Amino acid sequence: MGAASMVTSRDVARLAGVSQATVSRVLRGSGKVAPPTRAKVQAALGVTGYRPHAVARAMRTRRTGTIGVVVERVTNPFYPELLDALGVELERRGLRMILWDSARGPGERAAVDAIEQRLVDGIVFTTATAESSALRKAVERSSPVVLVNRVVEGLDCDQVESENEATSEAIARYFAKGGHRRVGLVSGPRAASTAQRRSLGFTRGVKEAGLRLAVEHIADGGFSHAGGHGALRRILATGRRAPTAVFCVNDLSALGALDAARALDVSVPDDLWVVGYDDIDTASWEAYQLTTACQPVPEMVHAAVDLLIERIESPARPGVHQRFPSDVIVRRSTAHVPF
Amino acid sequence: MGAASMVTSRDVARLAGVSQATVSRVLRGSGKVAPPTRAKVQAALGVTGYRPHAVARAMRTRRTGTIGVVVERVTNPFYPELLDALGVELERRGLRMILWDSARGPGERAAVDAIEQRLVDGIVFTTATAESSALRKAVERSSPVVLVNRVVEGLDCDQVESENEATSEAIARYFAKGGHRRVGLVSGPRAASTAQRRSLGFTRGVKEAGLRLAVEHIADGGFSHAGGHGALRRILATGRRAPTAVFCVNDLSALGALDAARALDVSVPDDLWVVGYDDIDTASWEAYQLTTACQPVPEMVHAAVDLLIERIESPARPGVHQRFPSDVIVRRSTAHVPF
Repeated sequence: MGAASMVTSRDVARLAGVSQATVSRVLRGSGKVAPPTRAKVQAALGVTGYRPHAVARAMRTRRTGTIGVVVERVTNPFYPELLDALGVELERRGLRMILWDSARGPGERAAVDAIEQRLVDGIVFTTATAESSALRKAVERSSPVVLVNRVVEGLDCDQVESENEATSEAIARYFAKGGHRRVGLVSGPRAASTAQRRSLGFTRGVKEAGLRLAVEHIADGGFSHAGGHGALRRILATGRRAPTAVFCVNDLSALGALDAARALDVSVPDDLWVVGYDDIDTASWEAYQLTTACQPVPEMVHAAVDLLIERIESPARPGVHQRFPSDVIVRRSTAHVPF
Repeated sequence: MGAASMVTSRDVARLAGVSQATVSRVLRGSGKVAPPTRAKVQAALGVTGYRPHAVARAMRTRRTGTIGVVVERVTNPFYPELLDALGVELERRGLRMILWDSARGPGERAAVDAIEQRLVDGIVFTTATAESSALRKAVERSSPVVLVNRVVEGLDCDQVESENEATSEAIARYFAKGGHRRVGLVSGPRAASTAQRRSLGFTRGVKEAGLRLAVEHIADGGFSHAGGHGALRRILATGRRAPTAVFCVNDLSALGALDAARALDVSVPDDLWVVGYDDIDTASWEAYQLTTACQPVPEMVHAAVDLLIERIESPARPGVHQRFPSDVIVRRSTAHVPF
C-alpha cells in the first residue's frame, strides 16, 4: 500500500529520540509518559504518518473494538431500522460493527467462530431462535453474546425484548372496545419468539374479552408482505362469517394484508380493522396508515449494548432479562377509537 | 474463553508427529504436504479442536478475508437490497463483510483507515460523492476501493453503475409516446451522481422529444418518501398548468409522490403518470404498482467484487468503468403503454 504503511514504530522512536517502548506507551494512552516526551512522540507520529496496525494492536490487547451483529434478512425494513439504532449506539461508544446474515449459509456459526478467533469482542443476535445450536454453544462457552428483539427460553444469557405478550393482549381488548366480535390472526414463523409471544398474548386477550377467533381465521403470514397478502385471502375465503378485525404479528405481513383487502375491495377500516407490530416507516405512509405497536428500539439497543459490554468484562455473571413496553399508535387502519 | 483456545499448534504438531511448520502448511492449504501427512495433521486438528487465531493469521498473511462496505442510510430500502446482493457475492467467495454508515460520524474516514490498519482488504463504496475527501485520499494511496451504484467523475478508480442517463432519457421518450406534453421532475441530492445523471438524461430526453418541462415543475425530492411527497405538492401548486407525467429519480421519492397524489385526490394514471428508479420491493405492492427502472444489482455487485479482488492483487492498474443497462418495468402508475 502507500508509503505511510512502510514506516515502523522504530522510525517514530528514532525521530522523537525516545525508546520504542515509550512510543507504545503513548499509542496505548498510558499515563506514565511525561507531557514533553508525549508531545515529541506525537509530533513524530504526525511527521511520519505512522499508524499502528490495528491487527497487531488487537493481538496485544486481546480486544478488537468490533462487535458482531447477526441479522436474518436485511430486507425486512424492521432490521435496517434496528441496525441503524445499533450503529448509532456502537459508534457513540467508539465500537465498530461487523454484520452476518443468519438466513444465508453459516451466518450464526461464523459469528460465534469470530469470537473465538478474536475478530470481534462479542455478538448481538437480533434473530435468535430456539433451534440455534451455534448460539447455545456460545452460551455454554461463556462467549459474550446478547439477544435483542428475539429471546430463547431456558438459555442463561442476556436478553432484551419488548412486552410482546402484554401488548398483543391489549390489542385484542382494543378490538373488543371497537365493538368487534369475530377476529382473525395473521401469525408468523414458529421459530421466532416474537411471532409466538404476540400470537399467545393476542389469543389470551381474545379469550378474556370474550371475542371469537375461529381456527380457520388464523393463518401464517410468514413475516412477509406476500405472506400477509396470502394469509388474509385465506382467512376471508373460509366460508365462515369473516372476521371484522385482524391482528398481524408484524408490519410487513400487515401491509400485505392491507394490500389484499385493497385487491378484494374490502374497505378498511369500515369493514375490516388491521393492526400490525413494529411501526416500520412504511406503516405511516398515506397508502397504509397502519395502526401498530411501536417497540422502543433505541432504548432496547442501548440496554443490549450495555449488557454486552458488561458481559465482555464479566463473562460469568448470570443472564439478565429485560423487557420494554411497546406503545400502540392508532392510524386509519382502525376506526377513531383511542387505544 | 473455552478450553479449545488453550490448545496451540505445538500440541497439534506433537500429536500428529510432525513439525509446527508442517501444521502451518496444512492450515495455509499449501500443496507441499504429502497426503498421508496432511491426513495425520487434519486428524490432530479435529481431536484437539485447535483453531488458528484469525488475527494472528492475518498478521502473517497480511490478508484479513474481510471486505468493508460503506453505505449511507441503511433505511433506504434500495441499500438493504444492494447489501443483500453484496452479502451473497462475498459469501460465495468466502469473504466477510464489515459495514460503515457514511451518513453518521466518520464513516468513510473510518473505512479508509481500516484498509491501512489491515482490518479489511478493500472497500466497496455504494454512496460515494465528489466531496468525499477520504475516498480521494484512498485512491491517491492506491488503496483497493471500488465504487458501485454511485460514480465520481475524474477519479482514477474502479467504478460500476447502471445506464442512468440513457434509461432516464428513454423515460422521457416514453412520456411522449404516452401522449404527454407537460412533464415534471422530482430530482435528488446534488452530490449523488445517480440523481444528477438521471436528471440530466431525463431533461435531454425531454428536449429531444419536444416535451415541456417548466422550471417550476422541477423540485428536489431528497431521495426520501417525505421529500417526494413535498416535491409533488410543490409541483402541483405552482399555478402553471400542471404536468401530467412526473419522473422521480428514485423509488422512495416516487412512492412519496404517489402518496401525495392520493392525498390530493389526483388520479394515477388517469390524471398523472409517475415513474421511479430502482425497483425496490415496495414498488410492486398493490398500493403503489410503480412503473420504475430496475438496475441489474446482482450483476453490478458481481462485477464490483471482481474488480475489487483484481485491484487487491494489482493495486497499480488503471481504473475501469463499467455500465449496466436498466430495464423499465411498466406497472399501474402509468397507463397501458408498452415501454
